[in-house]
Amino acid sequence: MGTVPRRSGMRLDAFLDRYAVRTRGMTASEIRALFAVASRPEVVSLAGGMPYLNALPLDAVGSVIAKLIRERGAVAMQYGSGQGDPTLREQICEVMRLEGIAAHPDDVVITVGSQHALDLITRIFIDPGDVVIAEAPSYVGALSVFASYQAEVVHVSMDDCGIVPEQLSDAIKAISLVGKRAKFLYTVPNFHNPAGISLSVLRRQEVLEICQRAGILVLEDNPYGLLGFDADPIRVLRADDPEGVIYLGSFSKTFAPGFRVGWAVAPHGVQKKLVLAAEASVLCPPMFSQLAISTYLASQPWQVQIKTYRELYRERRNTMLTALGEKMPSGATWTKPGGGFYVWLTLPAGLDAKAMLPRAVAARVAYVPGNAFFANGSGSSSLRLSYCYPPPDRIREGVRRLAAVLEEEQELLATFGPGELRPTGNNSSGASTPFPDLA
Amino acid sequence: MGTVPRRSGMRLDAFLDRYAVRTRGMTASEIRALFAVASRPEVVSLAGGMPYLNALPLDAVGSVIAKLIRERGAVAMQYGSGQGDPTLREQICEVMRLEGIAAHPDDVVITVGSQHALDLITRIFIDPGDVVIAEAPSYVGALSVFASYQAEVVHVSMDDCGIVPEQLSDAIKAISLVGKRAKFLYTVPNFHNPAGISLSVLRRQEVLEICQRAGILVLEDNPYGLLGFDADPIRVLRADDPEGVIYLGSFSKTFAPGFRVGWAVAPHGVQKKLVLAAEASVLCPPMFSQLAISTYLASQPWQVQIKTYRELYRERRNTMLTALGEKMPSGATWTKPGGGFYVWLTLPAGLDAKAMLPRAVAARVAYVPGNAFFANGSGSSSLRLSYCYPPPDRIREGVRRLAAVLEEEQELLATFGPGELRPTGNNSSGASTPFPDLA
Repeated sequence: MGTVPRRSGMRLDAFLDRYAVRTRGMTASEIRALFAVASRPEVVSLAGGMPYLNALPLDAVGSVIAKLIRERGAVAMQYGSGQGDPTLREQICEVMRLEGIAAHPDDVVITVGSQHALDLITRIFIDPGDVVIAEAPSYVGALSVFASYQAEVVHVSMDDCGIVPEQLSDAIKAISLVGKRAKFLYTVPNFHNPAGISLSVLRRQEVLEICQRAGILVLEDNPYGLLGFDADPIRVLRADDPEGVIYLGSFSKTFAPGFRVGWAVAPHGVQKKLVLAAEASVLCPPMFSQLAISTYLASQPWQVQIKTYRELYRERRNTMLTALGEKMPSGATWTKPGGGFYVWLTLPAGLDAKAMLPRAVAARVAYVPGNAFFANGSGSSSLRLSYCYPPPDRIREGVRRLAAVLEEEQELLATFGPGELRPTGNNSSGASTPFPDLA
Repeated sequence: MGTVPRRSGMRLDAFLDRYAVRTRGMTASEIRALFAVASRPEVVSLAGGMPYLNALPLDAVGSVIAKLIRERGAVAMQYGSGQGDPTLREQICEVMRLEGIAAHPDDVVITVGSQHALDLITRIFIDPGDVVIAEAPSYVGALSVFASYQAEVVHVSMDDCGIVPEQLSDAIKAISLVGKRAKFLYTVPNFHNPAGISLSVLRRQEVLEICQRAGILVLEDNPYGLLGFDADPIRVLRADDPEGVIYLGSFSKTFAPGFRVGWAVAPHGVQKKLVLAAEASVLCPPMFSQLAISTYLASQPWQVQIKTYRELYRERRNTMLTALGEKMPSGATWTKPGGGFYVWLTLPAGLDAKAMLPRAVAARVAYVPGNAFFANGSGSSSLRLSYCYPPPDRIREGVRRLAAVLEEEQELLATFGPGELRPTGNNSSGASTPFPDLA
């Protein structure tokens, strides 16, 4: 065999003057190199959003898929419809029924993970300079899509009950004062990534009404909705406004991400445009993935599996909250998620999550600094911790190491003042392309 | 269960004034409705580009994938790298070696089928109004991507030896006269879709030199390169110009399309931008698909399988050419493909493939009218016939029916003149989103 020697990485890019303007919004994350280090086994990574797949019944899944190939292999390996397999779209409607959605399979467009749906929706709505309203903080993958289509993101604050309605109204007014109207509100109402909080039931109607009055579509991204720890699934926004909400769902967290199957539910006109955009982008979503999931849903106790995940993640959430309470120095605060994967931790005054990250990785613990979740590079006083993947003893050890780093930073701060702790010339934007570890 | 009744399809689209300008380039194919009819079993479809998957060893593939899930299920179902699995990228380099390419796995970006690579490359290079040069005719899926990014497509004629170098030079000159430079030349040099011809070996260097002199990238799309019927694989353009060619490959035709695994090989700077664009669009390609194909390549005689496909398609090509020779009325001409899936048939003078299609479908035979393969709506004097999917007796029957339709059209033409045969007000553009049947 023998591979070809890699050509030098230091050559000039001969095509620098040829790229589209939109590529300026596509930047590599500065923390990518650090994360290569953070993936070493001695580092406790509280950074990634990978589901804990060892909780899946791999033998059963293997049998299901082997049977699929034996019985329908020539269909499962063939091209399929651009909108997605009709049977799987029916099953998706059954899944969404758990959250109060009454949708028809024709309303559903299956995509290559819900990241692909985010991309397609942005593609059909956003011209350069168009405004998107998003929570502060927001999912890094959504911000990277918005940046790559040259959208202008206006962040709206959240409190413990989710996005703040008054601030949403104020933002809409401010946008209209400059002669614009936001194309949509991007929101993760349930078990927010990265904030770890949910939009309160009382506020849901209010947020919908504000957007309806302003003529603004709501883009509801809900990968974690069925992973609540305490109660029945929360009724989603789409359930109460089928004509004003585009809903995004995913099997990545309730089953497994390696199939890349997500979906969008959209008003009729939007759905038709989404199918056209999807066909231009990938012809059709992977038929094999779709039929594997369809067969899994039809033959396996998938709701029991979701319960298994919920219990597993609840235990890890508890472990993390307990460890944070025991170890964190005073001045640090954090959210208490009722589901999903993430805790949002705000540092004691004067500390900077972005500047601190190299020292944390040296102390063998990794997190995602908060600025990754803001389009404008702010947010460095906070960081995201995930409890989904590491087992409880590793979570405890990771929090212990992180607490020690915080204490050292506080000592440095007391001794030398804030100048030492802040990165110099911090003018880099936050959002950059989400490498899959950040999903 | 019981599904929710579908809301009326005739409502106005409340978001008509919100869509991005680029959606004007995303139009539904006019022939889509006809193709729903054409998929009925009584119709011989010579339209689709679906590979004949019953030629695959489904039992062996099933065992390979079941073993993958048992042994590495938690990896195969997890998120992966945005650039694609490193082992599969090594294997792809081995596959490309058959066509003269010496590439490093770092140069390879795995995509959701090569359609996704087309989308990403267009995304990073094309601003609205930028020029792409493409053969006349061109792959419908590429034209739809170019349209959705608001590119201006300049077609260059082909003859039996592929794209005509003089015409390519002339087009480049004409483009520079209006103060522009094409961003790239899009070409399918081997077993062209839809033209069914290959760029002659003598012309390859000439085309490369013309593009090098003009500073124009070459985008070489090569899904059929290993499916030649007569000789060893043809040396591809990328083999002789690693810094000036972006190469696209796919497992859709040499193995199966349902996994949606294709790839791009690009110069270093372009490759880095492609990974960023890929991560924003789908986070990562399906890990399950990638490891399924990687395991298949590592454990199964994949070159023997390609030989099986070649022999199968050679027989069908022979059947189609023989039937065309026996049945077609004088005045019809067609290409003689040395590989791949397609014959390009030019109608006797006065006939129109687009206008004739409803009558052909009524006569229970379907094809793709030539205008689908032109950005400007021309090309209706030709049509594409595919021989990849129907067995030989169906191919013969389909050609017989098509020949009868042509003869009836000629009689109509002789009786009533050309007015009756041409669609009125034919101002629609050709390219529209490729539904997967047209792949």
